[in-house]
Amino acid sequence: MAAPIHILNGPNLNRLGTREPAIYGRATLAEIEAMCRAEAGSTPLVFRQSNREYELIEWVHEAIDAGAAGLIVNPAAFTFTSMALMDALKMFPGPLVELHLSNIHRREPIYHRSYVSPIATAVIAGLGPRGYPTAVRAMRDLLASAADA
Amino acid sequence: MAAPIHILNGPNLNRLGTREPAIYGRATLAEIEAMCRAEAGSTPLVFRQSNREYELIEWVHEAIDAGAAGLIVNPAAFTFTSMALMDALKMFPGPLVELHLSNIHRREPIYHRSYVSPIATAVIAGLGPRGYPTAVRAMRDLLASAADA
Amino acid sequence: MAAPIHILNGPNLNRLGTREPAIYGRATLAEIEAMCRAEAGSTPLVFRQSNREYELIEWVHEAIDAGAAGLIVNPAAFTFTSMALMDALKMFPGPLVELHLSNIHRREPIYHRSYVSPIATAVIAGLGPRGYPTAVRAMRDLLASAADA
Amino acid sequence: MAAPIHILNGPNLNRLGTREPAIYGRATLAEIEAMCRAEAGSTPLVFRQSNREYELIEWVHEAIDAGAAGLIVNPAAFTFTSMALMDALKMFPGPLVELHLSNIHRREPIYHRSYVSPIATAVIAGLGPRGYPTAVRAMRDLLASAADA
Amino acid sequence: MAAPIHILNGPNLNRLGTREPAIYGRATLAEIEAMCRAEAGSTPLVFRQSNREYELIEWVHEAIDAGAAGLIVNPAAFTFTSMALMDALKMFPGPLVELHLSNIHRREPIYHRSYVSPIATAVIAGLGPRGYPTAVRAMRDLLASAADA
Amino acid sequence: MAAPIHILNGPNLNRLGTREPAIYGRATLAEIEAMCRAEAGSTPLVFRQSNREYELIEWVHEAIDAGAAGLIVNPAAFTFTSMALMDALKMFPGPLVELHLSNIHRREPIYHRSYVSPIATAVIAGLGPRGYPTAVRAMRDLLASAADA
Amino acid sequence: MAAPIHILNGPNLNRLGTREPAIYGRATLAEIEAMCRAEAGSTPLVFRQSNREYELIEWVHEAIDAGAAGLIVNPAAFTFTSMALMDALKMFPGPLVELHLSNIHRREPIYHRSYVSPIATAVIAGLGPRGYPTAVRAMRDLLASAADA
Amino acid sequence: MAAPIHILNGPNLNRLGTREPAIYGRATLAEIEAMCRAEAGSTPLVFRQSNREYELIEWVHEAIDAGAAGLIVNPAAFTFTSMALMDALKMFPGPLVELHLSNIHRREPIYHRSYVSPIATAVIAGLGPRGYPTAVRAMRDLLASAADA
Amino acid sequence: MAAPIHILNGPNLNRLGTREPAIYGRATLAEIEAMCRAEAGSTPLVFRQSNREYELIEWVHEAIDAGAAGLIVNPAAFTFTSMALMDALKMFPGPLVELHLSNIHRREPIYHRSYVSPIATAVIAGLGPRGYPTAVRAMRDLLASAADA
Amino acid sequence: MAAPIHILNGPNLNRLGTREPAIYGRATLAEIEAMCRAEAGSTPLVFRQSNREYELIEWVHEAIDAGAAGLIVNPAAFTFTSMALMDALKMFPGPLVELHLSNIHRREPIYHRSYVSPIATAVIAGLGPRGYPTAVRAMRDLLASAADA
Amino acid sequence: MAAPIHILNGPNLNRLGTREPAIYGRATLAEIEAMCRAEAGSTPLVFRQSNREYELIEWVHEAIDAGAAGLIVNPAAFTFTSMALMDALKMFPGPLVELHLSNIHRREPIYHRSYVSPIATAVIAGLGPRGYPTAVRAMRDLLASAADA
Amino acid sequence: MAAPIHILNGPNLNRLGTREPAIYGRATLAEIEAMCRAEAGSTPLVFRQSNREYELIEWVHEAIDAGAAGLIVNPAAFTFTSMALMDALKMFPGPLVELHLSNIHRREPIYHRSYVSPIATAVIAGLGPRGYPTAVRAMRDLLASAADA
Repeated sequence: MAAPIHILNGPNLNRLGTREPAIYGRATLAEIEAMCRAEAGSTPLVFRQSNREYELIEWVHEAIDAGAAGLIVNPAAFTFTSMALMDALKMFPGPLVELHLSNIHRREPIYHRSYVSPIATAVIAGLGPRGYPTAVRAMRDLLASAADA
Repeated sequence: MAAPIHILNGPNLNRLGTREPAIYGRATLAEIEAMCRAEAGSTPLVFRQSNREYELIEWVHEAIDAGAAGLIVNPAAFTFTSMALMDALKMFPGPLVELHLSNIHRREPIYHRSYVSPIATAVIAGLGPRGYPTAVRAMRDLLASAADA
Repeated sequence: MAAPIHILNGPNLNRLGTREPAIYGRATLAEIEAMCRAEAGSTPLVFRQSNREYELIEWVHEAIDAGAAGLIVNPAAFTFTSMALMDALKMFPGPLVELHLSNIHRREPIYHRSYVSPIATAVIAGLGPRGYPTAVRAMRDLLASAADA
Repeated sequence: MAAPIHILNGPNLNRLGTREPAIYGRATLAEIEAMCRAEAGSTPLVFRQSNREYELIEWVHEAIDAGAAGLIVNPAAFTFTSMALMDALKMFPGPLVELHLSNIHRREPIYHRSYVSPIATAVIAGLGPRGYPTAVRAMRDLLASAADA
Repeated sequence: MAAPIHILNGPNLNRLGTREPAIYGRATLAEIEAMCRAEAGSTPLVFRQSNREYELIEWVHEAIDAGAAGLIVNPAAFTFTSMALMDALKMFPGPLVELHLSNIHRREPIYHRSYVSPIATAVIAGLGPRGYPTAVRAMRDLLASAADA
Repeated sequence: MAAPIHILNGPNLNRLGTREPAIYGRATLAEIEAMCRAEAGSTPLVFRQSNREYELIEWVHEAIDAGAAGLIVNPAAFTFTSMALMDALKMFPGPLVELHLSNIHRREPIYHRSYVSPIATAVIAGLGPRGYPTAVRAMRDLLASAADA
Repeated sequence: MAAPIHILNGPNLNRLGTREPAIYGRATLAEIEAMCRAEAGSTPLVFRQSNREYELIEWVHEAIDAGAAGLIVNPAAFTFTSMALMDALKMFPGPLVELHLSNIHRREPIYHRSYVSPIATAVIAGLGPRGYPTAVRAMRDLLASAADA
Repeated sequence: MAAPIHILNGPNLNRLGTREPAIYGRATLAEIEAMCRAEAGSTPLVFRQSNREYELIEWVHEAIDAGAAGLIVNPAAFTFTSMALMDALKMFPGPLVELHLSNIHRREPIYHRSYVSPIATAVIAGLGPRGYPTAVRAMRDLLASAADA
Repeated sequence: MAAPIHILNGPNLNRLGTREPAIYGRATLAEIEAMCRAEAGSTPLVFRQSNREYELIEWVHEAIDAGAAGLIVNPAAFTFTSMALMDALKMFPGPLVELHLSNIHRREPIYHRSYVSPIATAVIAGLGPRGYPTAVRAMRDLLASAADA
Repeated sequence: MAAPIHILNGPNLNRLGTREPAIYGRATLAEIEAMCRAEAGSTPLVFRQSNREYELIEWVHEAIDAGAAGLIVNPAAFTFTSMALMDALKMFPGPLVELHLSNIHRREPIYHRSYVSPIATAVIAGLGPRGYPTAVRAMRDLLASAADA
Repeated sequence: MAAPIHILNGPNLNRLGTREPAIYGRATLAEIEAMCRAEAGSTPLVFRQSNREYELIEWVHEAIDAGAAGLIVNPAAFTFTSMALMDALKMFPGPLVELHLSNIHRREPIYHRSYVSPIATAVIAGLGPRGYPTAVRAMRDLLASAADA
Repeated sequence: MAAPIHILNGPNLNRLGTREPAIYGRATLAEIEAMCRAEAGSTPLVFRQSNREYELIEWVHEAIDAGAAGLIVNPAAFTFTSMALMDALKMFPGPLVELHLSNIHRREPIYHRSYVSPIATAVIAGLGPRGYPTAVRAMRDLLASAADA
């Protein structure tokens, strides 16, 4: 079986569907997870959400130890404040895709400087819930091209 | 027939395949165009490249006048310097996807402030040549969800 | 029964009464809670403290789900570092009062930029432990004037 | 008779009730003065407004000379531009409460740096006209706790 | 009779004709007023100068109360320092033209950031004394186009 | 015959009338040219627009070589990005009026720093299409006062 | 009789002797005036204080019109905020000495940027009340050396 | 028995030995603890690691309550982001040594501003795993010299 | 025959001899080209000027394709604004000499930050027209030392 | 005999009289020393100049060891660059007068930030050579008032 | 015999024991040298102090030429101002330990940016005189671990 | 005999040939001096190096007094830190060429702001040891063109 792709979601994303829908859309996180699984096909997915910084850090540690093929992370507010999560993500040896529902560059300046972007392989932002399956497919492309090389 | 998606490419991208391949990859722009057409299926594509700022501006004007459904733009260096191109892009009424081959946030600070990001619908960066078909599919998702709404 | 007012307290405030009393005063958090309840009269209060960022975030989620009338928050150090808490607070639909024991503007510059102030309805700082009942009364005024409108 | 509390109001506040009511509310300054007197009970109040920087400065001098117990000041735009008023306020030996109708931290950056906050005992902002009686009560608390000490 | 246009002039402008003529020209303020009246034709003008910030503020209040059609203001040094005047000007409901004799952008940086420009309808600078009748005509154009709309 | 006034218009201004009419108004550039000619009377006008930076630069060279009396320039986005156009304008020996349809100081910060303002004789902004005839008349005033000196 | 030296004092200096004596010393302004007259000998002095910005501006105008030989100014807080006073002082044709009781460079950063220093002939700070007669003597030196040249 | 020294380690340090060994060395945290105990001799040590900000905060509270003699802290990424941990550390009454494996000043700018340094007694950085026993000895020196005083 | 040296000149340099001669000198570009050819001896030179950014970019592409030995570029104003030209120059595999007639560091700050300097082999500025033959000889030295290595 | 006043002069001041006389005047340092001795009367003076930073530092050490009553220092360029000299001056227990021939605030920004001003008792600038005897007298005033206290 | 460790001390450190003892302690440099020799055991030490930047630079040159094993430097004020010393230290091939008596991060901002830290192997600050033997032992650890590798 | 050209070299340049040869090349300073003399022909050269700031300052004084025709200076690290050297160089009446072996703009930001560039006639950087004879020839061109004028 192929190595899994881990998808980690940060604080407040458990509120999707009700939180500021003008910005974040009306899909719930469960619906989004379903879109991801549809896109992933036979590739196994680990899909998790936490409001706890340490839990996200430890899930990154687990992803490394479990030999995850790739990591997709929507760190939500931790994008802009958590160097500890960034330090954990830096240790991941495979491709890392940073994902945001909204186009963070259209928002206020405090949403502009991501700690994750300078260490990510790729960044996808602004596609709303559809950004998730897009990221899954992008990850598969990245894994395929790494396998080719 | 569906309204076309326009894909515009900025300066020096005609050199793809030979230019700093460690950053930009080895695919030529013609190969990338082929990937886009494969992804687009029956949706017509207009795919163009220019080193001329005015030509890109006028192609945006054309896209507006021709009723393009969506606009994907890889403005290359103009991303960071051309407010004139940004002013043209602002006039486009449909979804606008900003695309970069490299993850610009991993590069030097002069590559960090995009004039286009604050007006784009979505941003995709760091997927290399595969970012192009990803952007085409993302555009189709955006057009579909707008049609649903 | 009236909808309750929730009062949330951030990290290190469980140490009140012993921590830097020249800055924070000698009252304990339990004594402060008592002052709040005296001020609130028949309005029910939820009064909580945590050193855990995620717990504060989830208490904000709870306050929303439980239909809290208003939210008074003394985020302590998270005022200046937690965008995740800020993102949670943004979702609260009622009046939000930000409260600080000390006048943060008299302190070092790292205490000057609050993430909460730009999303708060009102800010009260520098009144020491008496700031808490002041905030409770201010919240009641805000709720009354919203009811009038 | 108790020493009086002085309440000083800065430029344009004589226009309250008509000036940008979305920001400042619909109460006139006379109505606000009445709320303050109701709150103050038997404590005498001096309540004044001026568009003149020098007049405000000299009223602070007077408050000092007259042995005012406490000073509540809503310096309006002088908050952000008048070091001369700040210099006068620094001389006041009793508690100083800075008051703003709107939450200045929600406004544009030019409204964020107050000259008065770093020298004030306490700051209250964003409660609209009800901020005035709140400030009067807060001042009474401050005077009471100073008397206790 | 048409509603009048008010023209307000700030500090030191009573010295025109002798003050730094290389920058400000040789016309006196009285000569400038005459040019304005010639340009205004039958439209009544109120033309005033003061070195007093509060007087300018109160003249703005008067202009509002008197139903002035438009306001032309050369705030001189208050352009760069008076948020109180800016706050007053913000309350004016009609068109506001900011006027400077010199091109302030050719001068030192302290003359570059105007508090008035972000709230003005239009800005005219660098035309010397002839800027005044230009502003009067521009105001008449603005009033005419508002009347058309 | 009098030496002509040259009026040069920068990128995207060929789209006037349709482009963001809330900011730029509904008049087309042809209608604006007509207003200018009406204002100019017998003074000959050269009125041009280009999206090409080099063409504007070369038109400035031509204006110099052809002995243009004055230059009115609306550089649009090049205002903020083209030092090459600024270098060309610096060579022009007569009066230079910088013109903007909108009041650029009311817009986002990227529209605040003009390369042209520090070398212009005068600046006119925010009068909409009527700014053009205003600029023509202002230029005639400048030429007349230079002739007087 | 020799042309007089004018000495102008800004806001709050009428409080000298009582205001923050640790910073400003215990001498009153009347005592300081006496020291100045003692130092000036037969040179006439005009010695004035005001809390009013406009009055100081108009006294500068008077000094110019009256042919004052030199101007000594302690603008107090207006040093840091009044461009209008700076504009008036710029018009003075003779030597200008800026004077501060305290060494403003030892104080907080808001006391570091003087509007007057860049236009003053000389600056004297930190000598306390004795700075005044020092400035009078310095002015006499400046006038003598100008007379020699 | 002597009061113990507490040694607290922040996020991701449980991964030592595998994480970026070029920067952090190959020793595991258990090996480092052993070095510390060897250095400490009979002085008792409390040696702990957590990825949880709140746990570190509460361990600081415990250290205070338990009468720890000194505190050595390697806050890892929390060095740069956790004001809540800094607030807790400020309450510790004894000597505080901040420790980093790498020389943080050789790294990117985001690793340069420590919240802990301005409140620490001493800082040791860049000695790799050997920094730990060095810190233990330094702490013993600090405790000895405090005992002497 | 030796591989040629390409010398590219940016906007407004076709005006040399008449443009601001105090800064740029009185030699025309044709005279400068002659100096270069005299210095180059038998080494072939390609010497070109354009006001068009894209033309300069494409000439750099040509220089690469044609196997130019070295590139001397005086980008004029594009030095400070064209990242697209910088991107093209980065692709050139041989030595790159950046040349300016004036010493740009003596000029205003907008002339201080060159996009080309961080990618150039060497920089020569301030020698006026004689800088060109100096650059040709410097290029020959660079080519000779590369050939030696 | 009274304790002496030490006057120390920094680099390039040995060139006075010839160096940029428009800024620094035509008096030589020997002439200036004579003025100082005339002013000092019976108070002994130590008057020295050096281009060597270490020599100035060691002269400050000597002044401390020798029990100098006061120190007048014109550090010239070291004002802006020598923290080592500043560190030495900080150790001096008596009054310290910082002296500059020119008004440094009228010069370029690199001359605006003095390392010495924040530790000096007083600052005198812009009086040319006459600043020296002014400083001597000011020092005598400072010493007298310290003796009084 | 083992290669020696060189310990270099910068300006004003010859004053230790008397200079600001609250910051720097009461030990003299001779006492500190004795502590270092006791710690070093049989490893030879070169221990020097100078107020002269060039002497320190040349001592670094000597240390390189003499094959010093390691370099410990307390550059005092030169830490913050001497790029020439930094350039010399960069040439040293062995481990470099930067040492400060006080914790420079607790002091004013001018003491925060060290030129040496970004090129040092390790940094030790705030341990007072005991920092010297700590640095000697740390150097021995560094040399031992380098010998192991 | 022609007046000589003085060439002054700053700190650490006596180490050339061994110091960071990847940046500075392998030629020694003696070899570089020989290249300069070969280039200078019959023009006498004074060629000196010092690690001492004061010595360089005094050599500039000497160059002025000796009537040097031109000055070439490679100030090494003093470029970025020595205003005293800059002050001395400003006094030199002839042409001044600033020279650097490396292209300082390719290095870290601390090497970007030269104190000498804004006062130099010309700047040459990045040519390695061959920059020296290039500078000699450039100086001869400058002297010749000054002689022509």
